[in-house]
Amino acid sequence: MTAVTVFDAYGTLFDPHGLAGRLETAFPGLGAAISASWREAQLRYTWLRSLMNQWAPFDIVTGDALRWACDRHGVDADQRLVSTLVDAYRLLPAYPDVAPALDTQQGPLAILSNGSHHMLQSACSASGIGQHFEAVLSSDDVHVYKPDPRIYRLVPERFGVTADEVRFVSGNGWDCAGASAFGFEVVQISRRAEPRERLGADHPPAIVDLRDLA
Amino acid sequence: MTAVTVFDAYGTLFDPHGLAGRLETAFPGLGAAISASWREAQLRYTWLRSLMNQWAPFDIVTGDALRWACDRHGVDADQRLVSTLVDAYRLLPAYPDVAPALDTQQGPLAILSNGSHHMLQSACSASGIGQHFEAVLSSDDVHVYKPDPRIYRLVPERFGVTADEVRFVSGNGWDCAGASAFGFEVVQISRRAEPRERLGADHPPAIVDLRDLA
Repeated sequence: MTAVTVFDAYGTLFDPHGLAGRLETAFPGLGAAISASWREAQLRYTWLRSLMNQWAPFDIVTGDALRWACDRHGVDADQRLVSTLVDAYRLLPAYPDVAPALDTQQGPLAILSNGSHHMLQSACSASGIGQHFEAVLSSDDVHVYKPDPRIYRLVPERFGVTADEVRFVSGNGWDCAGASAFGFEVVQISRRAEPRERLGADHPPAIVDLRDLA
Repeated sequence: MTAVTVFDAYGTLFDPHGLAGRLETAFPGLGAAISASWREAQLRYTWLRSLMNQWAPFDIVTGDALRWACDRHGVDADQRLVSTLVDAYRLLPAYPDVAPALDTQQGPLAILSNGSHHMLQSACSASGIGQHFEAVLSSDDVHVYKPDPRIYRLVPERFGVTADEVRFVSGNGWDCAGASAFGFEVVQISRRAEPRERLGADHPPAIVDLRDLA
């Protein structure tokens, strides 16, 4: 029995590769490759910092990851460019199915994300979808990143429900595995052609368009 | 004051890409690429499973990661091939500087690794370096992977020393960051041309040959 539907943000509602075009302008021929490395390093740093008990806010991690990605591809990102691109993360585009899917969803709805509150609020406003969510829950609130159980726990705490009353939607396979291990009912939205993660968990049902949630 | 010198295993003593040739034989043209994806997924799964409190032994994780890497590159790895390659991990070659460096090191020396005891014992025996180590400490002993502090803690517990009396040597930048955050004195051995990780920690001194430890 679903009491609340909760969405991951980056890779689920917002496209973390939405800045590849700007990267391409800054570094011709390397936009997609740097975008891929940036996202990989961003996730790696959230996991490592959580394990090390060395949490830092998501915008800091995102900037560090961009610098690593530029190093990785042998290009120089000066401080101004890093700041500009990390700021632009607050305006990442929503996937095209998001607004129409939210319009028809039964509430309550929420977001649970690694992102900082100010990044999430800005992205929701820019996409005009903020009014759909009763709560935006962030890594800021617990100083640890997914898939640590302590961040998933924010949902039952906020809504006064049990884990199995939460339907969780994510485009990130590792996030689906973490949410499933925590006890949520999970739906995976396939945003990119990636092999399924082999993390021992059952594989959740997958959809290719958020409108299929209904 | 160094009381004990501790080595990471894979990427420090043993080359985790030592099976690229066998992968190339099985999947012509893709050996190096699958080896790279295999290692990436192996690390990703150790971090994610630690965060999720879903530890599994390193040989299981290593097999799961190989299957993911094969999926990623669109090739089919049957169970026999996966078993053969995971078994071969127990015979990974030591880097050429390892044996001569250990011959001149003052003890006590130890290994602290994500690897399973049986994998580490086999690799040490195959390379003829096992007699140098007073202790082999494994993720098996704590059911969590690096860079969680609980695995680094095995060293002070085993040797009855404080963290700052431990000199820790690793070729993995994220492992160096974790060990440094724990309080070890860290030396990074550069095994591959990779940008330094941006994890907020001070960057340890780096060497390119283990003989320079002395």
